[in-house]
Order: sequence, then C-alpha cells, then structure tokens
Amino acid sequence: MTELGRGAEEILLLEELEEKLRKGRPLLVKAGFDPTSPDLHLGHTVLLNKMRQFQQFGHTVVFLIGDFTGLIGDPSGKSATRPSLSREQVEANAETYKKQVFRILDPDQTMVRFNSEWMDALGADGMIRLASRYTVARMLERDDFKKRFAGNQSIAVHEFLYPLAQGYDSVALEADVELGGTDQKFNLLVGRELQKQEGQEPQVVMTLPLLEGLDGVNKMSKSLDNYVGITEPPDEMFGKLMSISDDLMWRYFELLSFRSLAEISELEGEVAGGGNPRDVKVKLALEIVERFHSKGVANEALLEFIRRFRKGAAPEDMPEVGLGAGPGGMPVANMLKESGLVESTSEGIRMIRQGAVRIDGERVSDGRALLKPGVRIVVQIGKRKWARVSIGEAGP
Amino acid sequence: MTELGRGAEEILLLEELEEKLRKGRPLLVKAGFDPTSPDLHLGHTVLLNKMRQFQQFGHTVVFLIGDFTGLIGDPSGKSATRPSLSREQVEANAETYKKQVFRILDPDQTMVRFNSEWMDALGADGMIRLASRYTVARMLERDDFKKRFAGNQSIAVHEFLYPLAQGYDSVALEADVELGGTDQKFNLLVGRELQKQEGQEPQVVMTLPLLEGLDGVNKMSKSLDNYVGITEPPDEMFGKLMSISDDLMWRYFELLSFRSLAEISELEGEVAGGGNPRDVKVKLALEIVERFHSKGVANEALLEFIRRFRKGAAPEDMPEVGLGAGPGGMPVANMLKESGLVESTSEGIRMIRQGAVRIDGERVSDGRALLKPGVRIVVQIGKRKWARVSIGEAGP
Repeated sequence: MTELGRGAEEILLLEELEEKLRKGRPLLVKAGFDPTSPDLHLGHTVLLNKMRQFQQFGHTVVFLIGDFTGLIGDPSGKSATRPSLSREQVEANAETYKKQVFRILDPDQTMVRFNSEWMDALGADGMIRLASRYTVARMLERDDFKKRFAGNQSIAVHEFLYPLAQGYDSVALEADVELGGTDQKFNLLVGRELQKQEGQEPQVVMTLPLLEGLDGVNKMSKSLDNYVGITEPPDEMFGKLMSISDDLMWRYFELLSFRSLAEISELEGEVAGGGNPRDVKVKLALEIVERFHSKGVANEALLEFIRRFRKGAAPEDMPEVGLGAGPGGMPVANMLKESGLVESTSEGIRMIRQGAVRIDGERVSDGRALLKPGVRIVVQIGKRKWARVSIGEAGP
Repeated sequence: MTELGRGAEEILLLEELEEKLRKGRPLLVKAGFDPTSPDLHLGHTVLLNKMRQFQQFGHTVVFLIGDFTGLIGDPSGKSATRPSLSREQVEANAETYKKQVFRILDPDQTMVRFNSEWMDALGADGMIRLASRYTVARMLERDDFKKRFAGNQSIAVHEFLYPLAQGYDSVALEADVELGGTDQKFNLLVGRELQKQEGQEPQVVMTLPLLEGLDGVNKMSKSLDNYVGITEPPDEMFGKLMSISDDLMWRYFELLSFRSLAEISELEGEVAGGGNPRDVKVKLALEIVERFHSKGVANEALLEFIRRFRKGAAPEDMPEVGLGAGPGGMPVANMLKESGLVESTSEGIRMIRQGAVRIDGERVSDGRALLKPGVRIVVQIGKRKWARVSIGEAGP
C-alpha cells in the first residue's frame, strides 16, 4: 500500500481499497480524459503514473475518453475550451492520446474506452432517471458550484448532469477504483453513490494532487506557460526541468519519478549531507527526458545543457531577429518586445529591473538606453531565452 | 378578445395574442395532459372549455398527452401518483381521455399528440443541450422550487428537466398559444423562451384559474372529495351542482358554462331583482349534465332532484344495509360507520353534532344512543347520503 498510495491526496475509503486488494483479483482502475485537448504535459502524467503503478501490481486500467460530452461540447457556448468535436476529431484525438500515454502505460493492461458507448444508449429518459438520483442541494455542495451560486454567477442546469454522466461511466464499467485530480473529488464520489444504488460494490476514489508548474506556485497549465509538454523537444524539456527550484524538485520526484520512495529518500540524504542539489536535478531531468524520448537523447540533452548554461555559452540555434528603428535608434525595452522575447515593454522593463537581461553577456540596467541602427547583438533573458538581434534603419 | 380572454387568469402577452389573431391564420393551441389520471372532473374542463372556445374561433388545438414522462414515472419513487406506465396503459388512458374530451372538443379541430414522438428522439445529448438553456438560479425562481429550497426540502435534479421537456414540446409543435393552470405559468414561460432561442415566434401563454371544489374553498380534486367527475351518473352530478353556494354558482357560470357573458349578466340581473338563485342554479346543473349525458337525461335528473330534495322524500334507490349487533344494540355513531355512510365513528359523531344526521326523518343528537337489534330504519346524512339499515342480532 505504501507505494500504491504514494503521492495520493486522498483515498476514499482506504479500508475498502485494502479489502479489494486482499481479494487478489485484478482490479479495474478507471481514469477519464477530456477528448478536446490531447496535448499532455507533465501535470497530466501524475495520473498516468498512478495508472502505470496499478498496472505494475497486475491491475487493468481503463483509459476512458469522454467523447460523449466532447461531441456535445459546451452547449451554452461560453467555454472556448469545450468546442463541439466531430466523430473524426474525437478519433484523431484518441490516436494522439494513445501515442502519448503508451510511453507510460502498458498497452496490454490498458483498455481504451469511449463513454459514448453507453451514453448514446441512455436516451433522454435514461438521463432523466439518472438526474433523479441526486438532489439540487447536494449538487450545490460541490465547491465550484457553491461558490458560483453564492456569488450569483450563473450555473447552467446541464452542468449538474455532467457529474452524473461521469458517475454513470463507473456504473457502466463496474469500476473498482477511479483516479482523478483533487478537483474531481465530488464527481468521483457521485460514481460511488450511483454504483451503490445499482447494487454494485462502490469504487474506491483516489485523488491525486494537481502538479505545480515550473513557477512552483500555480497549477501546471498551458495557459500559464509554466508547463513541460510531453512531446516537447529534449533540450527544451531538460532545460525547463533544470530551471525549477530545489524544493519543487522533491515534489516532482515524488509525483513524476518512477524511482522508489527509498531511492528518493537516499537522494535527499545526499543533498542533506552537502551534495549539490543540481546533480540530483540532473537525475530527474534525465529520467523524464528518457521516458518521453530515449536514453541517448537524454544524455545529449544533458551535454547540450552543460555547454549552454554551465559554461554560459550562447546556444547554437538561437532565433535571428531583424528590427527596424528610427534614426535615433531603439530603446532596449522596445527591442525586447519587438524581438518577441517579452510580451510588452513593461514586462521588458521589469525583467531589466530584475537583472535578467543581458546584451552580449553584459547585464542591462536601463530600459531606455538606445540601441543604434546597424548594431548586431546577442540578447539573453534569464537562462533560456536567447535571440540574435540586428537593428536596421526603418524605411522613410 | 372579450370572449377568448374570459375567465383567464393571465395572458402573456396580450398584445402578441392580438397580433397573432390579426394575421387571420388558424393558430395552434397547445395544452398538455398527464397520462396517469385520465379521469377528468369539472376542474379539468376549465381548460377544455377554453380549448373549445379557440376551436369555435377556427383555431386548431393540440391535446398533448405527456406520455414520455408518463413512461418514466417518478424515478425517485416518491410520488405514488406518478407510477411508471407501460405503453399499453398510456394508450388505454389516451382512449379514455378521448372519450371524455370529445364531449367538449370538436374532434375535427383536435390533434391528439404524444410527446414521446420527439422526446424519444432527443437522446441523452439532446437532453443535456436542452438543460444548458436554463440556469439553476432561474429554475429556483419557480414558486414551489423556491419554497422547497428555502425550506431545505429536497428537489431532485430531474425535476429541473421536466419544465424544459415541457417547453421543448412547444418547440416541437411550434405552438402559437399554450394553455395551462396558474400553477403551470413558469413551465409555460420556459416554452416561450426555448422557442425564442430556436428562432420561433414565442407562444402566448394563457393561464386559467384552478376551479374551486364544491366546498368553494379548496381546489377541486379527487383526494379532497369535492369534485364532480365528468363520467359521474346524472343524478349525482345534478345533486352535487345544486349543493354549491350561490357565490360559487357565479364562478362556475363563468368558468364552466358555455353561455355568453351577456346571458350570464342577464341571469345575475334576475337574481338581483329578487329571482330565486336556486332556479338559476338549476339552469347551470341542467347545462352541465346535458353536456356529459344528454338533454333528456338532464331533465330526468332535475325531476328526480325535485322529488328527492325539494319534497324531502327519501330516494327510491337507496342502499340496503344489514348489520349485526350485540344483545345491547348498536350506538348510532357505530351504525353510521358500519353502514358505510361515514369513514369513522368520530366522523359520525361530528356529523351528529352538526345536526346533519336524521333517522326516519328525525334529527339525531346523541351518537351513543343505542339502536335495538331488530329495528329497520332510514338513515340520512345531509341531503344526499341515504341508507336503509336493518339491525339484526350478531351470531354467538
């Protein structure tokens, strides 16, 4: 149990899981995935790693693609992230998913299922029967519903149907265990209840933490640009992992590494005894890059990293940017924005204040300093953003 | 408009109805009926009369049988009045309905429809899309939901789906007008909104009052036993109508009579000028009995009524009851219960206290007075309950 429970935020109910495990038969472990965004990042792999772990103990996992809801999209039209997908898109996304997840999961112990299999057959009458199983008051106990209701933010009636549909998936699959993020806890518990009502042994619910992004603060997400995508190129992946704080590194070891807790504890001992945390971070970065690429590629990424960052050398393949300026030249902050290294001049000024900006290796302190037309410089922000910028004269 | 609006509680929106009428084309007028209880009483006919009136102005009415929800029943199992019906039961009930309603409606201008026609095709996905059209907060504005929510009484999630399903009926039918009881107002307005969202001209909603029962206080209903069923025998129907108060009589004229408002106003003038209200009540009773039976039968019912009540004579066909008693005899209150004239001895005692009980024409004042074995008496409660009771000796 120590390993199976590793990193889990909550297990409901632990004694039921132990009881199920004692029976010795392979358990059916379910986890649902949204068919709209098959581009996975390391945050998603916390769940996949747990699924893999169950496989290692001989259990079967169901990689459930929620295509039924994907085909509906967000009928209220409010969420751009939930467009209505065609059957073809769903299938294409499923293929993309498979390519990615089978780098972690064992295909032989994985059932890929689509919930449209049973949801299409449910019918409007089945949906109404399902909706009769839960009260409005209990739905409003879900955290986000509670907050929105209290804050007079609108909740559309169909949003109450999605947890029920998700719960019904567990009934249809007769799931023994359902895994999900902590934000899924309510929905996972609905599955438990619907199963009980159907006379099934209720599933054990295991919630997993939402992985912090590279900033160590916010949840890893694409929109915050603090993520490591699992299809990213090896150098990018390696560099991003090396950029995390030492604290965050241990968190990533717990949730992302396949090393045993004992091994991790040994590494912690090394650092506590005076070892360089950077060397341990290299082990993490190597492991992750190897998982999604290969051992050879991971080693090359390490070498490139050493060359680029330890030695302070500029990378070989940095982007070339040509900018035009007035006869007086261009302020540094504007150049940072024009070259695409920052989003705005004010972000540029902030970066300069933080001492993160170097031109030809020299730290810049004044965002208003003018770059003369005709100069050709190497610009660097932090450790990983580089560009070769040439400033020409603007046309008349 | 005066006649079409007669008796209506509310018309939303009157100007839209006028606009629709001005176009000169026949309107589609929808009214929904529950398939579980096809036994209609005069309360239901307020709606049917309004439908008939629209027919007289050349419009088409849809007698919509809500079989889709009938087939589901009350999935929470809490309501005994909403059992799940089989397809056969729904069809049998529809036949019973037709037999009854075509005494009022013109079959040639009536479309009998079943909402399963389109609800079955909707699917679970269609139901979810439908549910996305309304917010939880707006649903909770419905009076009964608001009260139950405030009072911590449970509301099952599927109860939010029924108003949407009813509204979708209007979309499917492209209804111009929907009629319903005042308690249906919210649901009827949902239909308006769904139609607007579908780009249809929204239906006009006309709510009709809930008819008071014979007691003049409560809504007419079977469970309160203050109703006149439209399949009741003529004498029973006539007698019940003659028992209402003079005030209630005018209400019934407005909502149940097919006489014009001008004629009714004339009758009011007669009574105001010293005429006997009883004579006017006879006109009402004759009209209603004739509607559900025939002119000849109505006249016979009047004659029987005159014989029975005006002259105070006992009816010819009262039930014969033989009761056994101990050697000491039987208290009057017990006899009332044993003979089935009242539900309980305490009801018997109450009736006696109210002076409603006569034995052989003499008012009884003591419920404990003993009736000796061997007597044969005529018992009367109020004006309409009679029995011929003989008390024998109980066996050993």
